[in-house]
Amino acid sequence: MTIKIHPLLCFLGCLWVAVAAEDGLIADMTCRVDAAEKPVWEGEFFPNVSTIKYEGPSSRNPLAYRWYNAEQVILGKKMKDWLRFSVAFWHSFRGDGGDPFGSPTRRWPWDDGTNSLEMAKIRMRANFEFLEKLGVEYWCFHDRDIAPEGATLQESNRNLDKLVALAKRLQEGTNIRPLWGTAQLFKHPRYMHGAATSPDVKVFAYAAAQVKKTMEVTHELGGENYVFWGGREGYQTLLNTDMKKELDHMGSFLKAAAAWKKKIGFEGTLLLEPKPQEPTKHQYDWDAATTISFLQKYGLLGDFKLNIECNHATLAGHSCVHELEVARINGVLGNIDANTGDAQTGWDTDQFLTNTEEATLIMLTVIKNGGLAPGGFNFDAKLRRESIDVEDLFIAHILGMDTLARGLVNAAKLYEDGVLSNLVNSRYGSFDSEIGAQIEAGTADFETLEKYAFEWGEPAITSGKQELAEMILHSYT
Amino acid sequence: MTIKIHPLLCFLGCLWVAVAAEDGLIADMTCRVDAAEKPVWEGEFFPNVSTIKYEGPSSRNPLAYRWYNAEQVILGKKMKDWLRFSVAFWHSFRGDGGDPFGSPTRRWPWDDGTNSLEMAKIRMRANFEFLEKLGVEYWCFHDRDIAPEGATLQESNRNLDKLVALAKRLQEGTNIRPLWGTAQLFKHPRYMHGAATSPDVKVFAYAAAQVKKTMEVTHELGGENYVFWGGREGYQTLLNTDMKKELDHMGSFLKAAAAWKKKIGFEGTLLLEPKPQEPTKHQYDWDAATTISFLQKYGLLGDFKLNIECNHATLAGHSCVHELEVARINGVLGNIDANTGDAQTGWDTDQFLTNTEEATLIMLTVIKNGGLAPGGFNFDAKLRRESIDVEDLFIAHILGMDTLARGLVNAAKLYEDGVLSNLVNSRYGSFDSEIGAQIEAGTADFETLEKYAFEWGEPAITSGKQELAEMILHSYT
Amino acid sequence: MTIKIHPLLCFLGCLWVAVAAEDGLIADMTCRVDAAEKPVWEGEFFPNVSTIKYEGPSSRNPLAYRWYNAEQVILGKKMKDWLRFSVAFWHSFRGDGGDPFGSPTRRWPWDDGTNSLEMAKIRMRANFEFLEKLGVEYWCFHDRDIAPEGATLQESNRNLDKLVALAKRLQEGTNIRPLWGTAQLFKHPRYMHGAATSPDVKVFAYAAAQVKKTMEVTHELGGENYVFWGGREGYQTLLNTDMKKELDHMGSFLKAAAAWKKKIGFEGTLLLEPKPQEPTKHQYDWDAATTISFLQKYGLLGDFKLNIECNHATLAGHSCVHELEVARINGVLGNIDANTGDAQTGWDTDQFLTNTEEATLIMLTVIKNGGLAPGGFNFDAKLRRESIDVEDLFIAHILGMDTLARGLVNAAKLYEDGVLSNLVNSRYGSFDSEIGAQIEAGTADFETLEKYAFEWGEPAITSGKQELAEMILHSYT
Amino acid sequence: MTIKIHPLLCFLGCLWVAVAAEDGLIADMTCRVDAAEKPVWEGEFFPNVSTIKYEGPSSRNPLAYRWYNAEQVILGKKMKDWLRFSVAFWHSFRGDGGDPFGSPTRRWPWDDGTNSLEMAKIRMRANFEFLEKLGVEYWCFHDRDIAPEGATLQESNRNLDKLVALAKRLQEGTNIRPLWGTAQLFKHPRYMHGAATSPDVKVFAYAAAQVKKTMEVTHELGGENYVFWGGREGYQTLLNTDMKKELDHMGSFLKAAAAWKKKIGFEGTLLLEPKPQEPTKHQYDWDAATTISFLQKYGLLGDFKLNIECNHATLAGHSCVHELEVARINGVLGNIDANTGDAQTGWDTDQFLTNTEEATLIMLTVIKNGGLAPGGFNFDAKLRRESIDVEDLFIAHILGMDTLARGLVNAAKLYEDGVLSNLVNSRYGSFDSEIGAQIEAGTADFETLEKYAFEWGEPAITSGKQELAEMILHSYT
Repeated sequence: MTIKIHPLLCFLGCLWVAVAAEDGLIADMTCRVDAAEKPVWEGEFFPNVSTIKYEGPSSRNPLAYRWYNAEQVILGKKMKDWLRFSVAFWHSFRGDGGDPFGSPTRRWPWDDGTNSLEMAKIRMRANFEFLEKLGVEYWCFHDRDIAPEGATLQESNRNLDKLVALAKRLQEGTNIRPLWGTAQLFKHPRYMHGAATSPDVKVFAYAAAQVKKTMEVTHELGGENYVFWGGREGYQTLLNTDMKKELDHMGSFLKAAAAWKKKIGFEGTLLLEPKPQEPTKHQYDWDAATTISFLQKYGLLGDFKLNIECNHATLAGHSCVHELEVARINGVLGNIDANTGDAQTGWDTDQFLTNTEEATLIMLTVIKNGGLAPGGFNFDAKLRRESIDVEDLFIAHILGMDTLARGLVNAAKLYEDGVLSNLVNSRYGSFDSEIGAQIEAGTADFETLEKYAFEWGEPAITSGKQELAEMILHSYT
Repeated sequence: MTIKIHPLLCFLGCLWVAVAAEDGLIADMTCRVDAAEKPVWEGEFFPNVSTIKYEGPSSRNPLAYRWYNAEQVILGKKMKDWLRFSVAFWHSFRGDGGDPFGSPTRRWPWDDGTNSLEMAKIRMRANFEFLEKLGVEYWCFHDRDIAPEGATLQESNRNLDKLVALAKRLQEGTNIRPLWGTAQLFKHPRYMHGAATSPDVKVFAYAAAQVKKTMEVTHELGGENYVFWGGREGYQTLLNTDMKKELDHMGSFLKAAAAWKKKIGFEGTLLLEPKPQEPTKHQYDWDAATTISFLQKYGLLGDFKLNIECNHATLAGHSCVHELEVARINGVLGNIDANTGDAQTGWDTDQFLTNTEEATLIMLTVIKNGGLAPGGFNFDAKLRRESIDVEDLFIAHILGMDTLARGLVNAAKLYEDGVLSNLVNSRYGSFDSEIGAQIEAGTADFETLEKYAFEWGEPAITSGKQELAEMILHSYT
Repeated sequence: MTIKIHPLLCFLGCLWVAVAAEDGLIADMTCRVDAAEKPVWEGEFFPNVSTIKYEGPSSRNPLAYRWYNAEQVILGKKMKDWLRFSVAFWHSFRGDGGDPFGSPTRRWPWDDGTNSLEMAKIRMRANFEFLEKLGVEYWCFHDRDIAPEGATLQESNRNLDKLVALAKRLQEGTNIRPLWGTAQLFKHPRYMHGAATSPDVKVFAYAAAQVKKTMEVTHELGGENYVFWGGREGYQTLLNTDMKKELDHMGSFLKAAAAWKKKIGFEGTLLLEPKPQEPTKHQYDWDAATTISFLQKYGLLGDFKLNIECNHATLAGHSCVHELEVARINGVLGNIDANTGDAQTGWDTDQFLTNTEEATLIMLTVIKNGGLAPGGFNFDAKLRRESIDVEDLFIAHILGMDTLARGLVNAAKLYEDGVLSNLVNSRYGSFDSEIGAQIEAGTADFETLEKYAFEWGEPAITSGKQELAEMILHSYT
Repeated sequence: MTIKIHPLLCFLGCLWVAVAAEDGLIADMTCRVDAAEKPVWEGEFFPNVSTIKYEGPSSRNPLAYRWYNAEQVILGKKMKDWLRFSVAFWHSFRGDGGDPFGSPTRRWPWDDGTNSLEMAKIRMRANFEFLEKLGVEYWCFHDRDIAPEGATLQESNRNLDKLVALAKRLQEGTNIRPLWGTAQLFKHPRYMHGAATSPDVKVFAYAAAQVKKTMEVTHELGGENYVFWGGREGYQTLLNTDMKKELDHMGSFLKAAAAWKKKIGFEGTLLLEPKPQEPTKHQYDWDAATTISFLQKYGLLGDFKLNIECNHATLAGHSCVHELEVARINGVLGNIDANTGDAQTGWDTDQFLTNTEEATLIMLTVIKNGGLAPGGFNFDAKLRRESIDVEDLFIAHILGMDTLARGLVNAAKLYEDGVLSNLVNSRYGSFDSEIGAQIEAGTADFETLEKYAFEWGEPAITSGKQELAEMILHSYT
């Protein structure tokens, strides 16, 4: 038997080669279509990749899970039910490697680069094969990345219907369904000044119609949530902006969205996704606290939760866990866009999360939240511009899933042992007193407190034990 | 007549020398006390500086105003009533040039460096002479910077009473009074884990007693506002923190503060001062939006306004004007801590604001707000560590005042001419329609909006005219 | 006579309207081509804009200079010779408003959006009309933005030759010529891993051939400089990178470039343009100091100077003036890419510089440098994505030119008066001593210095006078 | 037997309690001295802590090593010889928890808070007991943190001699010696404008004398390196600064230092420590590349290496590993100040490094460098302000040491397996060709390269495999 060695294999070193070869990575898996072909694709999209299996931490097979074991039960729930992974259609099937300084670098073998309806259908089929091979049951989409924009809104809607029909058929007999859908309200020039916050009432109406439709099809597909990311809801300069008016309009828009949800009987969660800036200089949904403030002001707090994205958190100057915790303690942690940024860059890099420590902390918050359902973990992460092999798409997702699965294993142990939570709880022990109870009930007044202060004298100070807490975390990761 | 030339003069070049010499800057004005003296000071503190006068833009006298002309009427109000300048006692009379890597560099001639009661009184007298020579009618203070901490809280209160009595006497017959007072809840080790958010109930009570007293003495002195800056109200690591509990406690604390204000008949405004971080890794009053969110959640929105500090705004990733506008459109713009940061450093530098363009934008917001009263502009700005001459203190304040006065002149012209506001208003013109009105009333639903969208077709896009807006601003500065 | 009022005019307010109307801004100047036309354009490109004239600071005409007066003599040189303004072809004639989250928003009336040779010629003609109406004598280009990439390198070269021939003909009889040319080595996927630093020797050779050709045509057109911006010369992750090898290759590449320059008799300056990151995570020409370090290590310091871009400076954590000064004191300040970033964003926004204070400081360095020639000020600045009117292109350039011209006027006055330089020089006066001279000659040894230190005792400290220096600057701006 | 339970234990949870109790953590270990005592200390400083032992990864004893096993051989060298850990005297024995907004929080039981000679001796003894119990053989110091500043330089020198004599005696019979010494040239007001870059020649001389002496005593103590961190060598504003003059002076200073080293026969390495800013706005030794540039310009490259501090790297916008690699490939990686910053703060937090992934990458560079000797890992890391227990000092160091030891174990495996290095090497394979060799020899010219480019045609592009590289790293950590 002759084995044709994949060029990749030379990268992998002795430990990795053997297993990879057995798994049959084959050279043409990575071949690229440089010229447009006619949009026909028969047979498999990933003929050389079998369903990804769990092989355990010692595996050196890049196309196997080392930590993610879907059916393994952790704290009474299956891993897959804690994690509820979702593939982002836009990054995985529409991402082309273009960036502000460079042309696209990547086109999948089945893709002719056009925005035709036929091509859209092929991409949708590829998506489902990818989900199945990965063993992932959720996907997320923007209306315009699954179906082409038409000459009119009506035509766009018809295009969308066709793709939704196909997706629905492909979902049949599987457990696959959208984690969430969303309307793309940031790419088309009509939205350059905003959608719900556009100074043009026609754009506001157009955006409303687009959300209406996308919510309907998300419902149709059995989607479990609906997301709003306001990529252009913000400003480039205050000099030409009436911020109060824009925020009022946005409040009105979301109120109408919540009403529409009820009207059509959609029971999924509505989610706002904070991001501080990019593309605009300032986005109104800056971070979790700002977004909660907005929801409070416009009376929408019961109708919306948040979709926290880790890379957006760090762009806002927060840790990802901070944003998750702010959402959690306000009862609005709805979904996580699982990615990470580069700690040294000031823009959204949407990388797959790979740091074990961070994943452990994220999962600890998820455990405290009792899970995320009906939300989950959407991989709002993309291949690097320079990663152009089909297998890179698998490797990236496997690594992202393994990192969070490993985080779950660590966090569950930490949670069960209670070491960190004991440390925290004991710090606040003095509030388990009469005056503590009054404070927490909001009934302690300054005169009473002053009386205590005079009586108690100078409080002793105690160590915050941060290094011990870090040691504990380190010993669980 | 022999003129003893001040060493400074050689710096000033020919244009500056003559005037400065005439004004009698004298060498020993800058002499420093290197060894502790006994705390006695008779006569003037600034014998060589006369009352600072307005001399107009062409003046080259460093000890004159070129723009600030207190009685000049702008848009129907005197400059001094628009600006309501205030000197920060802590920076000007307690700042010593120490930084995390260096010892103090500066000690005023009258200061022996001790924290004695006698010394505190001398500093208070210096403060009043400074205010008078500068022609400023407000000052701001922390309880512990005007009077020494005692061995017990009771003793600290007694010390404070003594200094307040002195200040009150010094205020008599003048228009001088505190713009605001505040309790210093961040310097003493007891507050290292927070004050209202300390995990120790004793610290919470101590802080309450301290605020109670400081609010009382602010009231006694005729102070017009009371400020809360929570320098330790935040966390260093989430690993040892119960964020929800801490925020609940902070809410309870402020509720009690608002009740106390009413009880003692204090009619000043209560102000929260946002800052994102430093000294803590995360401060709960991160920025204006976060602070408003907090006030909403805990039902405190009617009781508190905000004190926006420009350097805190930029540390939070916002422009100063953004924060002012967020406060303004939410009806909570109460006071401005007028300073600026270094655009390239990640910590609070508390510099005097000197950029004309920024000052113009700040004043435009203040005009839109109808002024700041009972708030004003407090100079929460300090001399550079390397600036050790007494005259530097005057120069810094004069420059800060002139910059804002110049900004006021520019902004008033811009406001009156209406050029920028016309540009902004015309952008939103399409909302002056029936459907626009429905949107703004929150009654437009998705079905109606979709109907319009279908009918209107693709909206035309129009230029945002940012460069034109920038040109307009440039032509007014 | 009926005047058709331009929609813009309603933005301008009463002061601006009258003049603008007289100047004949006409509505269709801003009309856009939404569908592709055949690439033919006859007559003027900007029929409604006359040559921009100087009208002085009080003018309210958006299409006039308020500060830039080309022939005005400042410190013995004409304004235009100090400033040597250049229009960047890529931003002004190829920029389309696309960003990482959005499609193009802008297409000039004459542009069909294709990359055809015929279209390229039309754009080149538009460029020259723009230069003439603006009264600017320099332009800058990338090879691939003026002529389309062909199927082969040879074909690309032939395309380039055609456009160069046209540009040369358009230059005839004018003073217009390139400030500099450069090869675009970052957009095509072949360069995704770098050009001179690509791990593929074929890409290295391709880049060399491209630079060779572009240097030849720059020479042919009378260009006065040649620039290297290494947009992909860096890394995305150190995990897959051999940084030493890449830097060695880059050194070899630039050595060959310098040799080629001599061989073809091109006497322009070769310029490296530092940028810290974006598109890559780390670019090898991080900042001025890093780039100088590189030039020193590879023995290229005599052959190259720097092109400092303000927005790149701030992305690197420096002020623009810092980078200019680092270049100046190392004798390598060659050219300035005049733009500015948004102080709150972490990516290159390439905005036109509008801050008077910053422009004053920039021009002060240029004066100290004795001017920039053969370099100049290239406007590496672009319209905001939302600015889509033809007139916006004029307004933006006028504002950029006026800002620097105003900075020149201020800086010249400051320089002549010598106030700031006296302050600086007097600070270092103590080095005008015998031991000072030895130190500056590098001959002072530690034993001698210790002897002095023992003898002198504790040095007195003197104020750094930063606030005074800021006051001086403020009084000149 | 009654066991008095330490308050800490309640934090530790069941898994941690048992072992800690056995190890005899006793309550008074954490007691603090709130009032000054007379500086006498007899007996042990850490009576309740025994020598820290290796117990393996599964240990839950906070006072044991889980990864650091000093004598374990890795890649042919003992762990302790790879790591060469050093305790920083200033943080561990002079750090008091003070910060820009707060007073000191911490005073060790033996410390009276004074700067007396007697107290200095007690601290030095505590240092040696700490080193011994930790099993660490190196320590680092600033002259002024081990001995008090006197009234004159001569007196300061005498004080220093006394402490050096004590340290020398304490070193006898042990393997303990300084990893490096350094002169503190940033804290005293005389250095507020710089030391080698002060505008005052007297300060320059004073600094020279101080370095001269500190180098002598470092030599006397058997120190293996000497470090320069220029905390004030930079500027606060360019307005009052002559940057060229300051850099020239710094070059002259370091030249004299290198000469002095030779004269006294000190064979340790001289090290510069880059830091971008803080306390100054701009420090001249900004980062590794800038510092190398400086060394090149002033002809000092053979005489100095670099001391890379991780937190300084991230403040400069680089990853720690980037800075280490820049130093390594330039042959100047001399020492590592092992710490980490908070990813969300813009100032130096000097935390102990706890991230396994980062430690693995750091150790991979150290392995490639063949180790660091005569340099090592100095813990330039401090307890959090809120960590005030003596045991916190042990816990922090143990965690820091364990993290790097774990990183070493991972990196050695990664290095031996060669998986990552194979991936990297194969990417550059095309340079193993004739033209590749010419390029690397600097002899390839543009004509030859163009010939190849024409011949080869369009290069194929290949994936950068970043996600695969990340997966490999993840599988080794």
